[in-house]
Amino acid sequence: MALIHYPVCDRNGRVVATAITNLDLHDMSRLARTFGLYRYYVVTPVAEQRDLAERIRAHWQEGWGGSYNPDRKDAFQLLRVVSDLVEVIEDLDGCQEKRVTFVATGAKERSGALSFEQMRDRIQRGGEHFLLLFGTGWGLADELFDRADYILEPVKGAGDYNHLPVRAAAAIIMDRLLGRR
Amino acid sequence: MALIHYPVCDRNGRVVATAITNLDLHDMSRLARTFGLYRYYVVTPVAEQRDLAERIRAHWQEGWGGSYNPDRKDAFQLLRVVSDLVEVIEDLDGCQEKRVTFVATGAKERSGALSFEQMRDRIQRGGEHFLLLFGTGWGLADELFDRADYILEPVKGAGDYNHLPVRAAAAIIMDRLLGRR
Repeated sequence: MALIHYPVCDRNGRVVATAITNLDLHDMSRLARTFGLYRYYVVTPVAEQRDLAERIRAHWQEGWGGSYNPDRKDAFQLLRVVSDLVEVIEDLDGCQEKRVTFVATGAKERSGALSFEQMRDRIQRGGEHFLLLFGTGWGLADELFDRADYILEPVKGAGDYNHLPVRAAAAIIMDRLLGRR
Repeated sequence: MALIHYPVCDRNGRVVATAITNLDLHDMSRLARTFGLYRYYVVTPVAEQRDLAERIRAHWQEGWGGSYNPDRKDAFQLLRVVSDLVEVIEDLDGCQEKRVTFVATGAKERSGALSFEQMRDRIQRGGEHFLLLFGTGWGLADELFDRADYILEPVKGAGDYNHLPVRAAAAIIMDRLLGRR
């Protein structure tokens, strides 16, 4: 999966780059590790933000954080901090020699979206490599929905409130697509 | 639901009080709001910690945070910062005049735990009020498992790694118990 910090929308629908949230590095690395993902990419074009994320990664991976908390070190092994989706594909192609199927996620209903069941079936069928895109801020920019091979239906709660944190949405989506029942 | 900061275990199994994480206030308020919960309790016996959490709540509820982000204000309405479970029950009894069924959650397998399906059925049957307990640190202390009316089975990922953040576990559990499919 990839957590996108650009291009995403702000509260007014403008395309912006968001700042990295420290806990997104931790929570989503642990989530990726729990559900057996191959990689967790944090994507931002802002060099200073990548440096910050890299320092946090290195602390838990190579610094004393790794010996203090080996489970955290284990999870952080999946994290890659990259500039854009081109770097993601380079990393994946180098390792897997396969085309990558992009899946966009978001809180809004969009026409042609795949249901969780349909997506789960496709994953279980095998032979394809999926990259799930999660948007920070107010969600992925339209260009990523246009570019994606599939759009996944939104997670619905009990009513109309659809403002889950991206960390919570990602957890629920991983469970729905990959969780054991 | 209640997020417990005492009594919980530390990495060595000792019973401790943990510090409040700012993002737990935000993420779990939004989660509670999404899944139609009645309240989200943050439980800590440490007065300074309650003051801190209260200041954050007030900022998003009554301060300029509320006008900047009305969706966040909406979610924070469910948050109550309390000292212990006695205060939780007082608040619930005052509002609902019913006994509360305590449900403990954790990452370890425990004998007699209810499956998600069993718990979902009980909730849908109605007539009962459930309080789900989530542990910070290395999980709820044994005394809370002893005290609970039910223990919920753990969330399982793809393998043996069972170190989900409490925020992610709570999101998955709410979705499994209350989510629309």
